[in-house]
Amino acid sequence: MVREEVMSKAAKAREASRVMGSLSTAVRDQALLVMAEELVDRSDEIIEANKMDMSKGRERGLSTALLDRLLLTEGRINEMAEGLRAIAMLPDPVGEVISMWKRPNGLQIGKMRVPVGVIGIIYEARPNVTVDAAGLCLKTGNAVVLRGGSEAICSNKAIAAIISEAAVRAGAPEGAIQLIETTDREAVNILMKLNQYIDILIPRGGAGLIQTVVRNATVPVIETGVGNCHVYVDNEADLEMAKAIVINAKTQRPGVCNAMETLLVNKDVAGLLLPDLLDTLRKDYGVEVRGCPATKALISWVNEASDEDYFTEFLDLILAVRVVDNIDEAMDHIYKYGTKHSEAIVTTNYNKARRFLNEVDAAAVYVNASTRFTDGFQYGFGAEIGISTQKLHARGPMGLAELTTTKYIVFGEGQIRK
Amino acid sequence: MVREEVMSKAAKAREASRVMGSLSTAVRDQALLVMAEELVDRSDEIIEANKMDMSKGRERGLSTALLDRLLLTEGRINEMAEGLRAIAMLPDPVGEVISMWKRPNGLQIGKMRVPVGVIGIIYEARPNVTVDAAGLCLKTGNAVVLRGGSEAICSNKAIAAIISEAAVRAGAPEGAIQLIETTDREAVNILMKLNQYIDILIPRGGAGLIQTVVRNATVPVIETGVGNCHVYVDNEADLEMAKAIVINAKTQRPGVCNAMETLLVNKDVAGLLLPDLLDTLRKDYGVEVRGCPATKALISWVNEASDEDYFTEFLDLILAVRVVDNIDEAMDHIYKYGTKHSEAIVTTNYNKARRFLNEVDAAAVYVNASTRFTDGFQYGFGAEIGISTQKLHARGPMGLAELTTTKYIVFGEGQIRK
Repeated sequence: MVREEVMSKAAKAREASRVMGSLSTAVRDQALLVMAEELVDRSDEIIEANKMDMSKGRERGLSTALLDRLLLTEGRINEMAEGLRAIAMLPDPVGEVISMWKRPNGLQIGKMRVPVGVIGIIYEARPNVTVDAAGLCLKTGNAVVLRGGSEAICSNKAIAAIISEAAVRAGAPEGAIQLIETTDREAVNILMKLNQYIDILIPRGGAGLIQTVVRNATVPVIETGVGNCHVYVDNEADLEMAKAIVINAKTQRPGVCNAMETLLVNKDVAGLLLPDLLDTLRKDYGVEVRGCPATKALISWVNEASDEDYFTEFLDLILAVRVVDNIDEAMDHIYKYGTKHSEAIVTTNYNKARRFLNEVDAAAVYVNASTRFTDGFQYGFGAEIGISTQKLHARGPMGLAELTTTKYIVFGEGQIRK
Repeated sequence: MVREEVMSKAAKAREASRVMGSLSTAVRDQALLVMAEELVDRSDEIIEANKMDMSKGRERGLSTALLDRLLLTEGRINEMAEGLRAIAMLPDPVGEVISMWKRPNGLQIGKMRVPVGVIGIIYEARPNVTVDAAGLCLKTGNAVVLRGGSEAICSNKAIAAIISEAAVRAGAPEGAIQLIETTDREAVNILMKLNQYIDILIPRGGAGLIQTVVRNATVPVIETGVGNCHVYVDNEADLEMAKAIVINAKTQRPGVCNAMETLLVNKDVAGLLLPDLLDTLRKDYGVEVRGCPATKALISWVNEASDEDYFTEFLDLILAVRVVDNIDEAMDHIYKYGTKHSEAIVTTNYNKARRFLNEVDAAAVYVNASTRFTDGFQYGFGAEIGISTQKLHARGPMGLAELTTTKYIVFGEGQIRK
């Protein structure tokens, strides 16, 4: 039963993807606009379905935070619709010829962006991902197979039905948006191995979900997720700037992957910077600080940091601090403990800025800016599918182009190979 | 024992990769040149080792073809050295900033090519892959873990020792080129799951090897391989050009992935084209032809093609033929039976050329040229790691750029996120 549902929906998505690939930009954008309209027009149905998820969630004892993520209101549905309209306004990456050249034998070879085909998205609680992921895939000419969390199943079913119908009404093929309705976990296991129907899988959610997919999928996966990010404050740094960046990177939104987890400070400025900065972090922002012995020697109230702390992505108002001798020790620390997500240096020294940019291996490396900028919207992509922490296909914030692949188009006049 | 060897070598490669990433272009190119020199200077050692492989191969009853692939001579070693010198001459992709832009808040964001880190290559008999793969990885600032076939183990050990020593002498870090020496198959199973040490895996060899890796690896894989390629001859086509392209695509080197396997011919020109063309293919090139009923009605000696034949990558002097009503039927056939590798149309009609280029989903799509051009050297890349048949990261012939990833480098002056 589970297998039948997953297989048949994935097969339908594959069939639809063939038509999707040749759909004009105008039709795809129009589909997004109609989807947005229908979401708003039929928000009653969505809110009704969402109430069922909410009441089941309360019965199952979901936390207030999770219940809040699950909740859909008129306002939130309007935001989802606005998101679709924004995607419709973005330039279409499909069909763009990235480069084109001529060979000595006269062959003209171009590299053109084309849809990937079928994208599988496996995600957790938030029902807005259903709209967002479907919109981004449709924009880029892909069919999509969605597998949301069981907590949001009623909301997801209502949303998927509405946006599917809307897309078809605007000219998209039947079947381009598929939602797996069974909440049986086996569905994920099947989906992960459907290489004949699914071209790429993008898991969105917690580390557990992502690792399950990375470990078990035979379909190529784009890994997103863990960010154990650092800010290194050099001895040659504008300390006011350093303070602002550290506070922003730690506290502006501590629960996300591009927030700073460990502050590294050059020993020559530790005494100048830390007492005041850590005090502010504690008093004004409620940050718990865990420091190395040198930090503790400067500020008595700081807790002791364990080696484990330096490996931890707190995703919380907790900050690890370490005083280092120089940029090399800072980069060694980042190499050992980091997850290659976002790393920043604060310095006024040209050579150290260059060394940090070149030698630190991460998806995003910053000089004199907050790590919090690692984000598709902040980078100006106008959309974000996630932040890739792997090195294949996409690294860092992923925009529309990352949902495409390329094909070579070759123009000849009878060339044969000698 | 096996696990220890694989783990410790992969860990050493990981350590070396950190240094590799910051090595200058000059040092990496110099290492390639010294490697080439040493291969030639120490060719006696290689040939001696190769003799052991050859005699074991004969004992094990390897086919003449396999023995020939295994054999190393002075000439072949010189070719391997020449290959390294050619790689040294190519432009360095590492450090290239592909694009750079400025955000309204003043942040300047660039996308820079950087080495992937550690690349695992799993391959079969030919010992020249040891040199080629190591050279390409070193050129692009990557460390490499090589796992060759057991038939070539003595040759591979000799070669790896020589090129490793040479690379270190030229300034590369110890451990950047690792060869797994155990021939235990378990080594491959371990390698495929070493996500902490290996960034990408590239299997090179037969379909069995590639599928094993795709099915079992947790490390991201670049899939290369199967090509069930077609040429469609339209009713509006230069039939002399069509003949030349068909003969070239089928016979110039039938055993490779970009060779044509099925010829599709428009019904209006089948009678004009096929009798003479198929006769030539049979008589002059020894091609066995398997045709549809319409083909058989035209040419009595043609064997009957089964549905299975249309799915088959013959890699041999066998050609399947099908007469189709029009371009749509041709594209439907390609969609159903093809492997999205290389597809060609022969036509003089502008609209059909455009439709074929846009609607056929394959790594390379040709108008009026042989499918045999799908190749890194033919495309002008100066190198080829393989031809990717997947859609993630790389599709089609892979040059040096495909052995790199990117990182975002961000220049700020104190920007924080609001």
